[in-house]
Amino acid sequence: MTGSKSRGMNDDRSTNVTGTGVGTRIRELVVTPIAFGDPPLLNADGVHQPLALRCILQLVLEDGTVGLGESPGGSVRLTRLQEAAKVVVGMDVFDTTAVAAAIDAVLSPTVPRSHDRGWATSAIEVACLDAQGKLLGRPVSDLLGGRVRDAVPFAAYLFYKWAEHPALDGREAIGDAWGEALDPAGVVEQARLMQQRYGFTSFKLKGGVFPPDEEIAAMNALAEAFPGQALRLDPNTAWTVETSKQVARELDGVIEYLEDPTATIPGMAEVAKDAPMPLATNMCVIAWEHLRPAVEQNAIQVLLTDHHYWGGLRRTRELAAVCEAFGIELSMHSNSHLGISLAAMAHVGAAIPHLAHSCDTHYPWNSADDVIVPGVIEVRDGAVKVPTGPGLGVALDPDALDRAHRRYLDSGIRDRDDTGYMRRIRPEFERRLPRW
Amino acid sequence: MTGSKSRGMNDDRSTNVTGTGVGTRIRELVVTPIAFGDPPLLNADGVHQPLALRCILQLVLEDGTVGLGESPGGSVRLTRLQEAAKVVVGMDVFDTTAVAAAIDAVLSPTVPRSHDRGWATSAIEVACLDAQGKLLGRPVSDLLGGRVRDAVPFAAYLFYKWAEHPALDGREAIGDAWGEALDPAGVVEQARLMQQRYGFTSFKLKGGVFPPDEEIAAMNALAEAFPGQALRLDPNTAWTVETSKQVARELDGVIEYLEDPTATIPGMAEVAKDAPMPLATNMCVIAWEHLRPAVEQNAIQVLLTDHHYWGGLRRTRELAAVCEAFGIELSMHSNSHLGISLAAMAHVGAAIPHLAHSCDTHYPWNSADDVIVPGVIEVRDGAVKVPTGPGLGVALDPDALDRAHRRYLDSGIRDRDDTGYMRRIRPEFERRLPRW
Repeated sequence: MTGSKSRGMNDDRSTNVTGTGVGTRIRELVVTPIAFGDPPLLNADGVHQPLALRCILQLVLEDGTVGLGESPGGSVRLTRLQEAAKVVVGMDVFDTTAVAAAIDAVLSPTVPRSHDRGWATSAIEVACLDAQGKLLGRPVSDLLGGRVRDAVPFAAYLFYKWAEHPALDGREAIGDAWGEALDPAGVVEQARLMQQRYGFTSFKLKGGVFPPDEEIAAMNALAEAFPGQALRLDPNTAWTVETSKQVARELDGVIEYLEDPTATIPGMAEVAKDAPMPLATNMCVIAWEHLRPAVEQNAIQVLLTDHHYWGGLRRTRELAAVCEAFGIELSMHSNSHLGISLAAMAHVGAAIPHLAHSCDTHYPWNSADDVIVPGVIEVRDGAVKVPTGPGLGVALDPDALDRAHRRYLDSGIRDRDDTGYMRRIRPEFERRLPRW
Repeated sequence: MTGSKSRGMNDDRSTNVTGTGVGTRIRELVVTPIAFGDPPLLNADGVHQPLALRCILQLVLEDGTVGLGESPGGSVRLTRLQEAAKVVVGMDVFDTTAVAAAIDAVLSPTVPRSHDRGWATSAIEVACLDAQGKLLGRPVSDLLGGRVRDAVPFAAYLFYKWAEHPALDGREAIGDAWGEALDPAGVVEQARLMQQRYGFTSFKLKGGVFPPDEEIAAMNALAEAFPGQALRLDPNTAWTVETSKQVARELDGVIEYLEDPTATIPGMAEVAKDAPMPLATNMCVIAWEHLRPAVEQNAIQVLLTDHHYWGGLRRTRELAAVCEAFGIELSMHSNSHLGISLAAMAHVGAAIPHLAHSCDTHYPWNSADDVIVPGVIEVRDGAVKVPTGPGLGVALDPDALDRAHRRYLDSGIRDRDDTGYMRRIRPEFERRLPRW
């Protein structure tokens, strides 16, 4: 008797939800904050601290099956995961959509932005899928439609960096196997090491650190050193629209895409009108509600997806479908991470047909402190073979997890603070975006 | 050294595909054309023939597991399914994305429109998921993210209809339990029967049969007879843009949405500018490449999805995500179908959170000749309970399938022809769209 939209069936959609299986219910979700070594990698915000933070999830089912997940760390995310952990108890591990809705509902009153809630739903979905795969004896990729490739290509993630974390507060300096990279020659040298050690054939430079001309010079040096190999540059919105346009023109024919040169969807749209290469983002399109304005304004041509905040692995496939429908190419974003995340990235990367670019990963910078049993997942020939064992195909090393958790406890670090750490060492540093 | 898009990784994406499991490979895909009784339902094209056609798929794995699928029939679709059946042999049943790509590739040279290839990939994906569920001991809904509702609401699908298929070619007249419906009173009476027998609380009328004023009168009669219950009207593009606008204004406050009043995305966009209620379609947005223009022109506010042509059940969830991102509500389309299709519709309907309207189904018109073992799947209280057994949760009745196949063979009917059949009975009938 009315045409109003409220007459649909949404009103009662949440009233009759029950799980399917006894024994497949979630008994407990254990969230363990950890810390692991991280080199002094420079970015627009400052510099990576000596320790990076993550949370390791162990989703324990009634039958004892354990599903693994890995989330970015920090006190806020840890608290949200702990809150989410309470509401998922008793739910069926196969009901991932309902699990996500329950988490979203419990966090909504205190976390208004869907993107900020997405970090929790995403990590828990991965843990559910790992547990499902273990129950069913199938790899997670099979739960996503199967593999369309057996190995997922990754790019070398190049950073300007110091030779070491300087001595500070009585702590000695911390060196690493990578050395210094503060100019084009240093970047090329780092790329060569990355290629030697991991076989990468595409390269991404984290920019926004030095004036644009120096970073253009670095990209040209890479292009000369690695002819015919895919290159990209990501200054993390360090530039104005005008600077972005200028850099884009100068890098015409040098890079396959330019990532987040400037902030906001309208800003990117302005640059995109002029730029000769595709623009990519993992900063201005990070939630479902950003897709419509981005498409309407033609702000981006490549989306760097990240299952850690888009809602998990199935949602990443759904996001890929959105991108397919609207002609947006797909690549993949990375934060500092360990092997559970890399396994999840490999499974979803294997399941998405139109992944158009090699994916980003910090893994070479952080893998020494991994918490999984080594040997299953590694970067070789510039790619990660998709594990074929049940679930994600990786196993926790309990001793390594314990060490990483103690490292977290002992460190006293509870939140990432690239700017604060930089200012301890270079007091004159100011975080300013755009800087150029 | 170059920014061109061909520098990505698409080039070699299909080179290294292998399946996961021995024993889970496809041994055979048996495609059985069938025919089943259909009442004389009127539409803009003419009238339903006494028999409707479908194809039943039995996907046999190496270990003997059989996955079921159901597809619209007709000689062209049958030939395509048979062609597709050859290429899927030997593939892993879990590799549904690769299976779809293989089918798409073999059909592409002769079937240029992706939509026309989609019928084959869709039915086979459902059969793969049914087989997966049987292998894993889980319902198909679990492979789609679990259920967010235990029963999926359906609408009564009302038709103008004759009391019987008239005697023809020596064949006697074929009556049915529904009687005639050729005016508002007849439509209301049919709706009452539908409600009595199946408990429907929402109603869709297939229009485009009588002049718009008569169909408006029918909708008003339904609104009076069923106050507060959701109504919709679907004239199958029988109207011009101007007529559509006029009808939309007159039905303001009476229907929840108006379905395919006029043809094409630009035509719908014109109507949408003016219409007080949402416009819905299953005719102008039927393939992934239609989504972008539909969104850009704001042509539709409700999409009637149909897993039979959007690529299967996982692709339907992906389509739902596109609709979610772009603010398009979701409902579900139906052709004349039997229980395997209804089970698949229930599983995917249970898995999609933002299904905003009750779904369409022809099942009450056709269920007497179903080929599955009765009892699992039925419309009750206006909804279909989602089967909880492994896979789709339904089982073939081999005798019923045999009868339905013999009915097909004996009938000589190889393609649906509502217009030709109507002209046998009413020689003056002309198919004309738009008619008003």
